[in-house]
Amino acid sequence: MLIGGIEAGGTKMVCAIGETDGSLETEVKIVDRIFVPTKSPEETLPEMIQYFQKWDIQTLGIGCFGPVDLNRNSATYGCITKTPKPGWAYCDIAGAFTNALQIPVGFDTDVNGAILGEVVWGAAKGCESAIYITVGTGIGVGVYCNGKLVHGLVHPEGGHILLERHPGDHFKGNCPFHANCAEGLAAGPAIEKRWGKPAIELADKQEVWEMEAFYLAQAIANYVLCYSPQKIVLWGGVMHQKQLFAMVREKVKKILNGYVDHEMLDAQIDQYIVAPALGENPGILGAMCLGMLESTVYKGLHRVGI
Amino acid sequence: MLIGGIEAGGTKMVCAIGETDGSLETEVKIVDRIFVPTKSPEETLPEMIQYFQKWDIQTLGIGCFGPVDLNRNSATYGCITKTPKPGWAYCDIAGAFTNALQIPVGFDTDVNGAILGEVVWGAAKGCESAIYITVGTGIGVGVYCNGKLVHGLVHPEGGHILLERHPGDHFKGNCPFHANCAEGLAAGPAIEKRWGKPAIELADKQEVWEMEAFYLAQAIANYVLCYSPQKIVLWGGVMHQKQLFAMVREKVKKILNGYVDHEMLDAQIDQYIVAPALGENPGILGAMCLGMLESTVYKGLHRVGI
Repeated sequence: MLIGGIEAGGTKMVCAIGETDGSLETEVKIVDRIFVPTKSPEETLPEMIQYFQKWDIQTLGIGCFGPVDLNRNSATYGCITKTPKPGWAYCDIAGAFTNALQIPVGFDTDVNGAILGEVVWGAAKGCESAIYITVGTGIGVGVYCNGKLVHGLVHPEGGHILLERHPGDHFKGNCPFHANCAEGLAAGPAIEKRWGKPAIELADKQEVWEMEAFYLAQAIANYVLCYSPQKIVLWGGVMHQKQLFAMVREKVKKILNGYVDHEMLDAQIDQYIVAPALGENPGILGAMCLGMLESTVYKGLHRVGI
Repeated sequence: MLIGGIEAGGTKMVCAIGETDGSLETEVKIVDRIFVPTKSPEETLPEMIQYFQKWDIQTLGIGCFGPVDLNRNSATYGCITKTPKPGWAYCDIAGAFTNALQIPVGFDTDVNGAILGEVVWGAAKGCESAIYITVGTGIGVGVYCNGKLVHGLVHPEGGHILLERHPGDHFKGNCPFHANCAEGLAAGPAIEKRWGKPAIELADKQEVWEMEAFYLAQAIANYVLCYSPQKIVLWGGVMHQKQLFAMVREKVKKILNGYVDHEMLDAQIDQYIVAPALGENPGILGAMCLGMLESTVYKGLHRVGI
């Protein structure tokens, strides 16, 4: 059986086809993948739809950049909501694919998709609660809790939690909403603006990664205290600086200072804060998983009448 | 039908008897209540057990000061774990009542009990996700998410999240574990130590409550971003300074700065961050609710063999 997945980002749309036996027990095999640049919805969506129409897919899942409307009782369910990205505000992305392909379409945030992928097939397999943190052009946190993805009032936006500034940091922050949130202080663009070069050109600058680890560890300590996750999957472009993992783990331990009494926050922290087991694919595999859940669990109930 | 509830605190144990038709639809009526000072387990537990033995209760629930072990597969399930309180570390409080009373005993943190009470009968009725924040001798956060109380690796400890210091605050903080966590900066004892008087004697000092609201709003903004709760119930001794509610709401709005786009964080914030609907009883009613869930849902499965 073939299924489709979309990792919808502000820069590019990853569209892929997966092969599955229909069971969540077996990891989906990616059989084809394209990248479509994110231009306007009028240009980009038809190109994506045409791609999927060439394959006989049974279901589609979308992990989407946010904020998105995940409330199945809302008139704008399946839409990106407020976004500064021209043309995409209140674009009904899930509806566009449902209408064009006439198959069940699962829809959630990109990071919720990614943690779902890691829970079903990856590093957080078997967990009842786990989070996926991506540190790239932004910081996003996908949250799985009590066996489900977390939505709530809107959906979690853990990348914007407020942090204490590093005493040596005089950069004003890069978030237009919050003076000192994690994304504004520690995402890729913040690193580049603070130090005058892209992160990748700063690999040998110890002070860059000390400060980065200071912020990421503070955010992660707060996530540990808020969510008490069983696993923390940490990834995104910035985490390709692999030295960060050990630095972050050490600082998380130091910040929590033994308060949360569990071996995962002590001797086993290497197995607690980890890279994805699905390599570069948690987002796209998670999107496919959203589609599989949509077709088995929800049976497209939210779209009755279309 | 009679049921029992315990709100187990570090200073006192509230023990109460409730009358219920056995359905979660109808609020339990409290028919009797005693307060037992928290001395050693050897003194305190027998006194509590004797009290409950006088009533024909069908089930008992305990909302307990933490940290506690909530893992039903653990050998220390039902125990308080590491606590500086003499005698109580690894005290099997749930086990003591199960053994003595031979009825199902529900067990969770005090704040998880309180949010359960508010979800089932109070201000968060009908919510799929909601949090209860108590600001008293400590700061605790009970978390209900996806229709269940949150445990995870241990249980949430949201009262210890790190906050940015108020520029005018030179108090070193009151938490032995964390230099600048919410509890250490904003719980009752922190207020008293910083200003030299108990909170209740500082009611007319505007600067005290400005600083308190600064910290509470920062913590709540972070909870909004992490949990995306549908309702925030805020209480505890410090919140008896009712002027704090409006100040906190205003500052939460200002911090989030329109980023989380929902009327609950804008025009309807008065209905979003609220006092409990169960008055002074969310903790004890929530504890009884834990007992009711234990007897209907879990059927004491975790204690097979006792």
